[in-house]
Amino acid sequence: MSDELKKGLEGVLVAESELSYIDGDAGELVYRGYTIDDLARDASFEEVLYLLWHGHLPDGEELAAFEDEMRVERELDDDVLALVENLAAQDENPMAALRTAVSALSAYDSDAGAEPTDRDANLRKGRRITAKIPTIIAAFTRLRDGQDPVAPREDLGHAENFLYMLNGEEPDEVLAETFDMALVLHADHGLNASTFSSMVVSSTLADLHSAIPAGIGALSGSLHGGANQDVMEALLELDDSGKEPVEWAKDKLEAGERVPGFGHRVYDVKDPRAKILGAKSKELAAAAGESKWYDYSTTIEAYIAEEKGLAPNVDFYSASTYYQMGIPIDAYTPIFAMSRVAGWIAHVLEQYEDNRLIRPRARYVGEKDLPFPALDER
Amino acid sequence: MSDELKKGLEGVLVAESELSYIDGDAGELVYRGYTIDDLARDASFEEVLYLLWHGHLPDGEELAAFEDEMRVERELDDDVLALVENLAAQDENPMAALRTAVSALSAYDSDAGAEPTDRDANLRKGRRITAKIPTIIAAFTRLRDGQDPVAPREDLGHAENFLYMLNGEEPDEVLAETFDMALVLHADHGLNASTFSSMVVSSTLADLHSAIPAGIGALSGSLHGGANQDVMEALLELDDSGKEPVEWAKDKLEAGERVPGFGHRVYDVKDPRAKILGAKSKELAAAAGESKWYDYSTTIEAYIAEEKGLAPNVDFYSASTYYQMGIPIDAYTPIFAMSRVAGWIAHVLEQYEDNRLIRPRARYVGEKDLPFPALDER
Repeated sequence: MSDELKKGLEGVLVAESELSYIDGDAGELVYRGYTIDDLARDASFEEVLYLLWHGHLPDGEELAAFEDEMRVERELDDDVLALVENLAAQDENPMAALRTAVSALSAYDSDAGAEPTDRDANLRKGRRITAKIPTIIAAFTRLRDGQDPVAPREDLGHAENFLYMLNGEEPDEVLAETFDMALVLHADHGLNASTFSSMVVSSTLADLHSAIPAGIGALSGSLHGGANQDVMEALLELDDSGKEPVEWAKDKLEAGERVPGFGHRVYDVKDPRAKILGAKSKELAAAAGESKWYDYSTTIEAYIAEEKGLAPNVDFYSASTYYQMGIPIDAYTPIFAMSRVAGWIAHVLEQYEDNRLIRPRARYVGEKDLPFPALDER
Repeated sequence: MSDELKKGLEGVLVAESELSYIDGDAGELVYRGYTIDDLARDASFEEVLYLLWHGHLPDGEELAAFEDEMRVERELDDDVLALVENLAAQDENPMAALRTAVSALSAYDSDAGAEPTDRDANLRKGRRITAKIPTIIAAFTRLRDGQDPVAPREDLGHAENFLYMLNGEEPDEVLAETFDMALVLHADHGLNASTFSSMVVSSTLADLHSAIPAGIGALSGSLHGGANQDVMEALLELDDSGKEPVEWAKDKLEAGERVPGFGHRVYDVKDPRAKILGAKSKELAAAAGESKWYDYSTTIEAYIAEEKGLAPNVDFYSASTYYQMGIPIDAYTPIFAMSRVAGWIAHVLEQYEDNRLIRPRARYVGEKDLPFPALDER
């Protein structure tokens, strides 16, 4: 028992994990031994889900079976869709709506009564939750914008089907591939705060349907998943200001404000995911014949590197990438959840395999030995 | 950065807190300087809420104002009541239903758009959540049992009104007092796993409506809040078995099974809350003229102390206390949440005051440097 206060638990080892490895000095991210560069280039999000949950890359047969198992789970029960409709009518925050709708899924899951640590049941629950999250996000976004939801299609891949449900039309190949890659890049990232939230919840042997809404809740915070939205809002602010990017960034810093999307607690160099998304953002810009957002981003990146010595994180380039894909800004964090649920589930499965209740201590700095005063003596 | 693995974070100091102090050796529990014995005997649950959230015991005027602010928040919006009805119709697990319904409250909270760290807004949100949880639990329990929900009454106290909504009639004074005392006893307990879940979620600057469902989720696990239900099921099993309590407990231990309700990670001696509830359980038994459950409990307590050197924890006596009050067994853990939400909110308020993102590390024990094989080479 040490008396040192570790408020952020920095550097505290709370688990052993085979899932992802981050080398902050080298700027490397690895899922189960494979570099994020290889996975982003060559693996689909479904392959990454399989890799994280099953421990190895699927062969052709395993992948086909897994894709089939996922695609049939996309549709929402009528009650859940009605719930999403109510939340949209209340103009609920999109992450709050996602949290509530995912929490509600347990009532319609045929494995809800299984032992929380039943691995096979958890893989089924995990597939259902992961398959339904895109449907919830797309339906909520459309309903909130006064459009009818679009039912999922079983003949499309996970990423492609989401864009189809969101926009009501099939995305072109570049968009679908880019979006799939963004999902791959965000799927896992060590014990970030949302993943750790899911683990703490599951450490009481609470079930997956309790752990995942906790992850969604944590991700909604501005110090975590909310950052990609902040980046796009900043870029739009820059665009509105009529200033040059460097001038705008300089004014921000001089006013004591932060330029969002820079620095990361675990990377000392450029976030490898930012590198990959940055390149993709450039491709998208070229395809669309509009390089404004990409140019803003690279100019600001160079300026902040010089002024503050900070490198961009994944949020910095996911913002302009999603914007160029026509995704509404307040769907960025829900999309992060659509991907990161892969890691939440994988880490919860690991937690169940070798569980120990997570219960730290607080140093008590309050009063002691107070005599209790009667109400009329206070 | 230490390389020691702290899987359960035992002994790791993650916060400074003025809220509660546990002396595991002496068997003492203190909220903001006042012993749990004094509070259980002399303070209402509303006084304890005020104490935990505002930092001092309310005087007469403050208490009256606070009680007024709480009682007007009890009613559920029609949509939330309809959601509870749907969940009951699906025979959802009561803790899962509570998690989903509380998550949904944000859509109807007029402060939902406030900054997550806005203290005044959080006190209002906290009052609303705390005031509505009993209404959700009572409505769900009745609907699930085929009865109409009973609307809250503003002229009753928090504890009394819950028993009224649950049973459709006003409880007698002894029941209402005992139940209020049980709420006081469970209101806070250091950084238990559910409280810590709420803190981790809020450390990303996610809002209170994200943090509290995480606490509910964590509490639902069998290693945490689920234990009081396990105790009652064990006592009923004993009763059905026709065995003497000692014989039954002996058979359990010999079969390698655990007798639930004993031992606690932070108490080396008898949990002070178990002492207080044990005495109350005896009173209830005397009032009801049926001492069976109390007698079972004391006999098993003596036997387990001798055989295993373990003392009962709070779950051990809350089980028979709630049973004697006629509360359905699967409402025990929701009732725990009805009380512990006091502590969740108080710790989240503390977290926001001096926030640091909570992000520990995992030791990576997986593969490294794997070449990526094409699909047809796997």
